[in-house]
Amino acid sequence: MAMGFEPPVLLATVSLLSALQMGLLARRVGLSRMIHKVLPPAVSGPPEFERTFRAHENCVECFPVFLVVLWTCGLFFNEPTAAAGGVCYVIARQIYFNGYVRSVKKRLPGFYLSLAVFLSLTALALIGVLREITHKYFHIHV
Amino acid sequence: MAMGFEPPVLLATVSLLSALQMGLLARRVGLSRMIHKVLPPAVSGPPEFERTFRAHENCVECFPVFLVVLWTCGLFFNEPTAAAGGVCYVIARQIYFNGYVRSVKKRLPGFYLSLAVFLSLTALALIGVLREITHKYFHIHV
Amino acid sequence: MAMGFEPPVLLATVSLLSALQMGLLARRVGLSRMIHKVLPPAVSGPPEFERTFRAHENCVECFPVFLVVLWTCGLFFNEPTAAAGGVCYVIARQIYFNGYVRSVKKRLPGFYLSLAVFLSLTALALIGVLREITHKYFHIHV
Repeated sequence: MAMGFEPPVLLATVSLLSALQMGLLARRVGLSRMIHKVLPPAVSGPPEFERTFRAHENCVECFPVFLVVLWTCGLFFNEPTAAAGGVCYVIARQIYFNGYVRSVKKRLPGFYLSLAVFLSLTALALIGVLREITHKYFHIHV
Repeated sequence: MAMGFEPPVLLATVSLLSALQMGLLARRVGLSRMIHKVLPPAVSGPPEFERTFRAHENCVECFPVFLVVLWTCGLFFNEPTAAAGGVCYVIARQIYFNGYVRSVKKRLPGFYLSLAVFLSLTALALIGVLREITHKYFHIHV
Repeated sequence: MAMGFEPPVLLATVSLLSALQMGLLARRVGLSRMIHKVLPPAVSGPPEFERTFRAHENCVECFPVFLVVLWTCGLFFNEPTAAAGGVCYVIARQIYFNGYVRSVKKRLPGFYLSLAVFLSLTALALIGVLREITHKYFHIHV
């Protein structure tokens, strides 16, 4: 790993895709505010609004963590694998959000799916990063 | 796009500028807590405190999304254009925050301005990323 | 600074470490929900739950800001210095979180420690970035 570095376009594309998703989810919170007449800065209201609001907050909390595991996995393990995992994550988050809007319990399938993607990407990123460290600093090539 | 990659200093500088802004906005929430005597972990209090708190939360939600569109636009479309857009975003967020602290309605100019910057950076980033993908994976040079 | 760019593995490792920490802190909020029987989407409950929730929220707010100063410091000032600062930040955040869960006042040592790390990394990042800009755009080598 070195020289002739090109910015990884697949990771960038998946990051952009998930950023667009974050924008669309934020818009759905805005629409939910209108439907349920919850004016900002209030964040409490009818149960459906509160579920929509929390579903978005949860995605906001996870987004930077997702970006870190996506990019470390992509740069140090394998870019297409990380990008494919990233697409799965975006789908899992959409299932999570849509489920949570409907009921508290229906958030669970999407939640477990995104957790599985997280753990997989993290494991692969750890492998890649540790391999690079042993190679670069201890001159052991695994 | 390849070889001789240097870390993009303009993107880094704008990212650092916006990170500093996030720090200063967080500090203003802390000052507002003192003025209005809202002790942590409480997040409800007088309307001005609640608007300040929500203004900051909204900036927190947008920050990672902004970083993604800034960097993808800068790496795959054009660095100075992305950096200029980033500076506009930082200004727009300041207008948004200062407006929101004064009244719910006064958040709107800054909100629409930052939305315009978001959409512009995202459109340019998409152009850059798609051009790179068609070139790299389909050997079509647009 | 140029050519033969390798993805900075120390920065990636520290980012991954702090991402793992964010995951573990999120899990502690989930456990606190169970212990105090606060079902989602509710975010208010017994004081200990509210402190745990706010401690996590504060870490969420700081995480992307931390990543920006870590990477700009590491790319433009010095990678091992930034990585060492990053490890200190992760420890400071753990002290902050554990302290905040116990009492509002006990969040302060960890808070001041992470603030000190933030300010140090930001100052070094600014030095690195300004040196690179004066070199690249004004041909002044400091």
